[in-house]
Amino acid sequence: MQPVREAHEYIKLFDQLNIDLALTDDCPMTETLNSQWLIAKYPKAIPRASDFRWFEAPLPILRDGDVRVRNLLLSLDPTNRLWISGEETYLPAQHIGDVVRGGAIGIVEESRNTRLKVGDLVSGLLGWQLYYSGDARGLVQLPRIEGVPLLAYHGVLGAVGLTAYFGLLEIGCPQAGESVLVSAAAGAVGSLVGQIAKIKGCEVVGLAGSDDKCRWLTEELHFDAAINYRTANLNRALRESCRKGVDVYFDNVGGEILNAALGCINRKGRVVTCGLISQYNAELPVHNLSNLSRFLIQRARMEAFIVVDYLPRAAEALRQLADWLLEGRLKYRVDLVQGLEHAPQTLNKLFDGSNEGKLVVQVSPAP
Amino acid sequence: MQPVREAHEYIKLFDQLNIDLALTDDCPMTETLNSQWLIAKYPKAIPRASDFRWFEAPLPILRDGDVRVRNLLLSLDPTNRLWISGEETYLPAQHIGDVVRGGAIGIVEESRNTRLKVGDLVSGLLGWQLYYSGDARGLVQLPRIEGVPLLAYHGVLGAVGLTAYFGLLEIGCPQAGESVLVSAAAGAVGSLVGQIAKIKGCEVVGLAGSDDKCRWLTEELHFDAAINYRTANLNRALRESCRKGVDVYFDNVGGEILNAALGCINRKGRVVTCGLISQYNAELPVHNLSNLSRFLIQRARMEAFIVVDYLPRAAEALRQLADWLLEGRLKYRVDLVQGLEHAPQTLNKLFDGSNEGKLVVQVSPAP
Repeated sequence: MQPVREAHEYIKLFDQLNIDLALTDDCPMTETLNSQWLIAKYPKAIPRASDFRWFEAPLPILRDGDVRVRNLLLSLDPTNRLWISGEETYLPAQHIGDVVRGGAIGIVEESRNTRLKVGDLVSGLLGWQLYYSGDARGLVQLPRIEGVPLLAYHGVLGAVGLTAYFGLLEIGCPQAGESVLVSAAAGAVGSLVGQIAKIKGCEVVGLAGSDDKCRWLTEELHFDAAINYRTANLNRALRESCRKGVDVYFDNVGGEILNAALGCINRKGRVVTCGLISQYNAELPVHNLSNLSRFLIQRARMEAFIVVDYLPRAAEALRQLADWLLEGRLKYRVDLVQGLEHAPQTLNKLFDGSNEGKLVVQVSPAP
Repeated sequence: MQPVREAHEYIKLFDQLNIDLALTDDCPMTETLNSQWLIAKYPKAIPRASDFRWFEAPLPILRDGDVRVRNLLLSLDPTNRLWISGEETYLPAQHIGDVVRGGAIGIVEESRNTRLKVGDLVSGLLGWQLYYSGDARGLVQLPRIEGVPLLAYHGVLGAVGLTAYFGLLEIGCPQAGESVLVSAAAGAVGSLVGQIAKIKGCEVVGLAGSDDKCRWLTEELHFDAAINYRTANLNRALRESCRKGVDVYFDNVGGEILNAALGCINRKGRVVTCGLISQYNAELPVHNLSNLSRFLIQRARMEAFIVVDYLPRAAEALRQLADWLLEGRLKYRVDLVQGLEHAPQTLNKLFDGSNEGKLVVQVSPAP
């Protein structure tokens, strides 16, 4: 019975792929096989292997305007968890049977597009798959800059860098001498937020989940202090490390840490709501902000932002970020995992905090 | 024994009054007695009679620059609960034995001040007492405007009006056609917020605690809808009443209602954090904002404000509010309670919602 059910499910998946990827019956196929991760079920808590389905299918023949991209480096980010929730977020909901949405860097191997040619490096929502075949409009051509490795485009010079840059500077508005607190500070976004805040003359305190990460923050990235939130008494540690209170709290996590930060917020303090990773896997999210009374009394502001809103202004940020990077003022770590087949379990490293730096999956060898 | 203990306690209270009210030993007294409510204990939950102490003492002789004001109308507002908490809020903490801080309108009966003369009507933090004796600098002289009753200076033309005006317009930034949700909408601030939002061309939905209050909102104040939060299924009622979602939520209450409002917040929605009355009496405040994920996805903003920050700009607001009042475009209700002796239990009407309109205590007869 097993093969029959499998086949039946494949047909169902294909039905949906027909809609979502426009693989209609009259869409001719090549003989090359693509490897893909599809959404099998919407995860209920921590994503499990059974929430994803490995799928191999022939590649479609390209239409006018399309490109074929071989994915090299797949970016794994906390926001991926929102995308596979089955709910509309700041991007449309994904459906069961869709290729898992994901940002990736790839190389154009076939082109029926006038803007992109074979050999170009591109970045975009190429998906959890070996080959992207389709519309080229959402893809950004990456420049090749001397001294900038390809991986930097998933970090400082990618969505991560733009998130840190615009979130901190446009929403947090830190002034020199102010105190900036960052959660998930050893993460891809948090580590850049702290370093940019230091460049801007702020005192920076980071929250991270291990002593090793804390040491990296203070010794390598020159944070003024770092707190291991797993072992510290959070409220006391914040009072001790943020003696002048908190002017800007850059929040990647929500939950208890957000509440503790509100307990230290200064007059006219700003909370940048960038992520709420502590609750992404919770069936009943809990953000008990008992310290909202301090938020009120201090006339504080909490503002959420999504980096996609700032993409029209990406150029100004990337110029600045590239300068800082080449000057050695922005450091980063990459946690590179080999093989698309490991993507699902690798994503979970973000939720148990076992990743050390920007989490990236090598899908195929770089040229 | 009773008189001895009482006398002992009075002496202790006097010791503190010496500091707080500068009634030093060399401060001569008149023979007229003042009646005052002092803080006996910091309330733990709902304020109780035993948290206050009725006190009668001779009036001090005025010093140069001082005035003596006979209080006429004492304003009772949710923020009073914060002031007697024993903690520093946006104003300094009050001490045990202090005259309970309170905004009032009074008439100058004696003056050693060049700016204020006998017979002038003034407004300021005159306290829960029959007579205020002291510095005139914090007192505002009230104009006598044809058609404007004295009580309006505790409402539309007082801190309440300024709170509604600046909170809604400066923090909420409502645009014509947008949807505005207000909690404690039949309260002094909320009812003005809704009416100003209507003047600005918004669709307005109010939350209130009784069907009578809801009827007043829709029938008299022309709110587009009103929800009785005590009897309605909150989430469903909000979805039904705010079909286009919520662009501005003016929050007077915090807690569950804030969370429900976040569940309807629109893209780039604004939450004006004006008050958190649902939690003022809680020993462990609870603001479980499980809907913060929607706040994030919608790039919303939540910003607290305190009207005192806007006092330098009061004139512009009062001119506009007076115009709207005289044009009949702003309506209000006053819940007037006779007698300073009833102030403590009257304050609690704010917390059980039994007040109908702006809560005011008549301390002594108007001239």
